[in-house]
Amino acid sequence: MQKTNVRAYGAEAADASLEELKINRREVTAGDVEIEILFCGVCHSDLHTTRNDWGGTIYPSVPGHEIVGRVTKTGADVTRFKTGDIAAVGCLVGSCMECKNCKDDLEQYCINGWVGTYNGNDKYLGGHTYGGYSQKVVVEEHFVLKVPGNLDLAGAAPLLCAGITTWSPLKHWKVGKGSNVAVVGLGGLGHMAIKLAKALGANVTLFSRSENKEKDALALGADKVIISTDPQQMKKVHGEFEGIIDTVPTLHDVNIYVPTLAASGTLVLVGYLGPLDPMLNSVPLILGRMSVAGSLIGGIAETQEMLDFCGEHNITSDIEIIKIQDINEAYERMLKSDVRYRFVIDMASLQN
Amino acid sequence: MQKTNVRAYGAEAADASLEELKINRREVTAGDVEIEILFCGVCHSDLHTTRNDWGGTIYPSVPGHEIVGRVTKTGADVTRFKTGDIAAVGCLVGSCMECKNCKDDLEQYCINGWVGTYNGNDKYLGGHTYGGYSQKVVVEEHFVLKVPGNLDLAGAAPLLCAGITTWSPLKHWKVGKGSNVAVVGLGGLGHMAIKLAKALGANVTLFSRSENKEKDALALGADKVIISTDPQQMKKVHGEFEGIIDTVPTLHDVNIYVPTLAASGTLVLVGYLGPLDPMLNSVPLILGRMSVAGSLIGGIAETQEMLDFCGEHNITSDIEIIKIQDINEAYERMLKSDVRYRFVIDMASLQN
Repeated sequence: MQKTNVRAYGAEAADASLEELKINRREVTAGDVEIEILFCGVCHSDLHTTRNDWGGTIYPSVPGHEIVGRVTKTGADVTRFKTGDIAAVGCLVGSCMECKNCKDDLEQYCINGWVGTYNGNDKYLGGHTYGGYSQKVVVEEHFVLKVPGNLDLAGAAPLLCAGITTWSPLKHWKVGKGSNVAVVGLGGLGHMAIKLAKALGANVTLFSRSENKEKDALALGADKVIISTDPQQMKKVHGEFEGIIDTVPTLHDVNIYVPTLAASGTLVLVGYLGPLDPMLNSVPLILGRMSVAGSLIGGIAETQEMLDFCGEHNITSDIEIIKIQDINEAYERMLKSDVRYRFVIDMASLQN
Repeated sequence: MQKTNVRAYGAEAADASLEELKINRREVTAGDVEIEILFCGVCHSDLHTTRNDWGGTIYPSVPGHEIVGRVTKTGADVTRFKTGDIAAVGCLVGSCMECKNCKDDLEQYCINGWVGTYNGNDKYLGGHTYGGYSQKVVVEEHFVLKVPGNLDLAGAAPLLCAGITTWSPLKHWKVGKGSNVAVVGLGGLGHMAIKLAKALGANVTLFSRSENKEKDALALGADKVIISTDPQQMKKVHGEFEGIIDTVPTLHDVNIYVPTLAASGTLVLVGYLGPLDPMLNSVPLILGRMSVAGSLIGGIAETQEMLDFCGEHNITSDIEIIKIQDINEAYERMLKSDVRYRFVIDMASLQN
């Protein structure tokens, strides 16, 4: 298979910094779209993957799955894109397209295994997939999204992961006009959850451990902020929320939020991967028919729906634009939550 | 308030056996129905309450909330019952009737606190409520159910707790024709879950730790039995179930069942009250948009719906009838799961 060599940024090992390297991209096949990457958001998963925090990272690791760019070439069978179009790619670049979940537009739950934008199995070139910290990407048309023309392209990039990850549970658990929703944590995901829930018509509460998040949260659209370490404040919202989107990526006690759910309410974990410690207590779940659930990014159709919704409501992520050369410093700042609220790489910097 | 003294069976302390004692029942007020108790099912909660396993038991404790009997008197405002009718009472004898949940027919999640059939606050006589191990009970009409005429009365008694506890989650999570459902544990609740799910049109699988449950499970309506301690068998049902009703009342590892859920599936705990140990792992929840939920008995309208459904499908519990004098022995056998599948007290024995 024909391929071209392009510039990228990645890590050669778990303990290595990200540096410039070269990767191969396939020449477009009939069903492919080639995209020159303009902006790429920086997700916590990028950092976890390059450092092998979850195990299973294959090196060199080129992360990045919040990709916005310009179409530079299309295959013969491509119908929805043409050269010059603005296009986007999220966390998925492939799935079996045949299983029940794929047929239900739930490619992210593909029974035969979806292909991640990075660290996935590259069925075209062999080896593993490389993400958006690169000049170009070649993706099957089905997994390429359209970006509404009114959106700021850099601010739109994080919609592809942070946006869809919070949108999907909001929609699946039917958040809409008048819903009472809470968001745990104000980071990349949390700030998108507030914006999207608010635009859907919900009353939105932010749970935060620090009082200094209040001003920002209200500016983003939250109706109120509850300090989760204050038992008095927590008591005031007992039984209030139909849904809670818990975006905290680190170990934390879920039990303190469960009693703030209304009967039949659901707390959805979208950030933390691992055992629930302290142990989840079933008593409040049973006494209120509550659920603790998880949710992973979103399907392709749902991602397009979210992008279109963001276009209608002019929603983008609050971002700080960086050069690719500053990525290692950005990771360190991200670990300290020192970002409001998402780093986005201006990929023009990779040309320099 | 006028009251009458009736015979009952109860415990005077956590470490005491159940013995005959006398309790007061109020004279019917305008809204009340007085019922001569014919049969009363024996629930694990009866045992836990009399032994103060959950704390908070008030003595003397007279348990029993699976009550079927004959109406002996009705208040002036009662319209749905008359003397001589067969009637039933379940786990609830009161709620605020004014909160959002009560208005939604979810009295079991009453925000202001529902009144348990035993060990609840008796707003009429003061003190606490006494359950169905007694000659008579007086209950507000709203909390009295009708029993379809074709049902065996003794076999119908356990429907009031074991039946509704499994029916409510089956309905809430929309189990119907062609659904793939699993039941964990084959006891009082589990055997009702199988019968009800099957009658709703679902394909039903029993998870059991012991192979000797297979014959019974199939006879009750299960389509297959999976031995949960056999990794090969568990692997075969990976991703299969839209819903799992987990009836096990003791500590057990929920994590082994989660991967058998289909995408967006829910495991509902109806038996075990306490911390989930080993810790619940969020990874499979997130990777499959799965939920772990709880569910508590059911509302009054839903309980009537379940009884009517059981009438149409001629469903009752598989029971062993005992005399009230054998209740302490029955508790010991229940602790060893030595009952197929519910003890029911023939309350005529209390007259002897």
